[in-house]
Amino acid sequence: MSDEGGNTSLGRRAFSRSRSHFADRITADGWDGWPVEAGRYRLVVSRACPWASRALVSRRLLGLEDALSLAVTDPVQDDRSWRFTLDPGDRDPVLGIRFLSEAYDRRETGYPGGVSVPAIVDVPSGMLVTNDYQQLTLDLATEWTALHRDGAPDLYPARHRDEIDAVTAEIYEDVNNGVYRAGFAHEQKVYEEACTAVFRRLGLLAERLAGRRYLVGDTITEADIRLFTTLVRFDAVYHGHFKCNLRKVAENPVLWAYARDLYQTPGFGDTVDFDHIKRHYYQVHTGINPTRIVPLGPDPAGWLTPHHREQLGGRPFGDGTPPGPVPAAERIPVAGRP
Amino acid sequence: MSDEGGNTSLGRRAFSRSRSHFADRITADGWDGWPVEAGRYRLVVSRACPWASRALVSRRLLGLEDALSLAVTDPVQDDRSWRFTLDPGDRDPVLGIRFLSEAYDRRETGYPGGVSVPAIVDVPSGMLVTNDYQQLTLDLATEWTALHRDGAPDLYPARHRDEIDAVTAEIYEDVNNGVYRAGFAHEQKVYEEACTAVFRRLGLLAERLAGRRYLVGDTITEADIRLFTTLVRFDAVYHGHFKCNLRKVAENPVLWAYARDLYQTPGFGDTVDFDHIKRHYYQVHTGINPTRIVPLGPDPAGWLTPHHREQLGGRPFGDGTPPGPVPAAERIPVAGRP
Repeated sequence: MSDEGGNTSLGRRAFSRSRSHFADRITADGWDGWPVEAGRYRLVVSRACPWASRALVSRRLLGLEDALSLAVTDPVQDDRSWRFTLDPGDRDPVLGIRFLSEAYDRRETGYPGGVSVPAIVDVPSGMLVTNDYQQLTLDLATEWTALHRDGAPDLYPARHRDEIDAVTAEIYEDVNNGVYRAGFAHEQKVYEEACTAVFRRLGLLAERLAGRRYLVGDTITEADIRLFTTLVRFDAVYHGHFKCNLRKVAENPVLWAYARDLYQTPGFGDTVDFDHIKRHYYQVHTGINPTRIVPLGPDPAGWLTPHHREQLGGRPFGDGTPPGPVPAAERIPVAGRP
Repeated sequence: MSDEGGNTSLGRRAFSRSRSHFADRITADGWDGWPVEAGRYRLVVSRACPWASRALVSRRLLGLEDALSLAVTDPVQDDRSWRFTLDPGDRDPVLGIRFLSEAYDRRETGYPGGVSVPAIVDVPSGMLVTNDYQQLTLDLATEWTALHRDGAPDLYPARHRDEIDAVTAEIYEDVNNGVYRAGFAHEQKVYEEACTAVFRRLGLLAERLAGRRYLVGDTITEADIRLFTTLVRFDAVYHGHFKCNLRKVAENPVLWAYARDLYQTPGFGDTVDFDHIKRHYYQVHTGINPTRIVPLGPDPAGWLTPHHREQLGGRPFGDGTPPGPVPAAERIPVAGRP
């Protein structure tokens, strides 16, 4: 969940990520009062945010674009947090609100916590349902199955769940969240421990991925999505802005090929907006980038170079098929992409 | 000259480098009152500073270590600028002063400008002679010849001076100083112009160096020294801290091989202290790195990998020879170096 704008002012305390407060689940049986239903919910994301981007990738891979509509916030929050300033009148056209916080307020008046993406909002009531970034994509994969497209992959296959859970727990601790611990550190020792853990884990992941195309089994799973959303941001923001600079992902042959393989797979790279990513990180975290200047690099053209990972075999979508083209309204101008 | 500590607080003005105020020259004929004389002068440097490091390299290549003694400042200035806190009692053992500013004061009471390195101080009087970083190394090469070691190279050969001056003028504008203009920019446009110029010039230099081992002629000259001192800092500080991040030097095959060739040549890499470099930039420029955290990367071990540039021919020292080993008192513990 991205509400780190506020966290950069945490003084000398170590960075710690909040648990999601709103953890209702949207399920097939509607146990929590929120049954899966086409057209009822709206997914609110920032394309800058790695946690929200998991949901962007899952929604594309599963073909949920029609069933679950999408609201994209301005990548740069102001003091009222995530804003719909990319929409006409600075207002989300479906929810009719200017700030994501309004959906939080409808759910719980005076909630004192941060406003984070990803969020799913119930369109009829305008209420936030969940901002539980850890559970949200698992439910898209397992509870929304009735609305999946034909040929949707199984992103959380029952026979591999223990392994996926174990791998993603390590990735979360050392990589997804590790880069933030490094970047928001206010003490040299805290930074060094976090940065060291990031690269130790990336080294282990590179070993794992040297001989196999995907992290678990021979198909794309939730584990790959969670690693991808950090890897695709790594050289653009974590390497410089968060000082995770032992080396770039582009300097690790295995991880760089793995990341490009996914980037070039429909549903991954077509959700990535490097402009949003860079402006968010460099302009919001004034505690570590007071000038708010956004670097010109790195050149994103490299993402489209051949990766040769298909030589490792694997069946990206298992018995399924790749997703179709991105809906016209959601297409991103991508530097370096024809 | 490094007094950029103060320049980071220049508000929204563009960064502009001061001309050296003290531009007396130490010459063979003593025209300015400062004749070349063994043991009379002391070179004051920070190993962090690229401008001072030109003098460190020239002094080594020319074998002037005995004739021109060396004072190395703490890489991190305080509000009194460069300090001799690496010496016993925080005092330079030869000049007897705690701050380089004291030598400035002896030369001109109440000088309002910045205190910069490199500086040459007259030991008997304790007075600053020159802080003219542009002229200083040219004079070491051409005026101090009587004190050069046997086999010293000609770093500023008469027949190539026009070409060296032209090449170094471009390198100065776009590269040596360009990275500072990018790093200290307070406006996006200023940054982008500087960063673009850095990489445009690096691209042209890579073309020039693709088929020839050195910038001018077939031997090491002043031009190579001036490019080297920026290239060796590039991935360590300019890429992240100064946001010159289109790509690392290590990602440009020609420049990376050229830089390693020089680094591995006696007189170059043995003057480089990555610890001093990183601590200076990341801890002094609080306007762009408020946390003062010093990144762990990049891994310096790559500097010692084979470069294969000897296949291009060239005669590093012309008719001369490489310098001998670094004097024991000046040896630097180098990460990644055996």
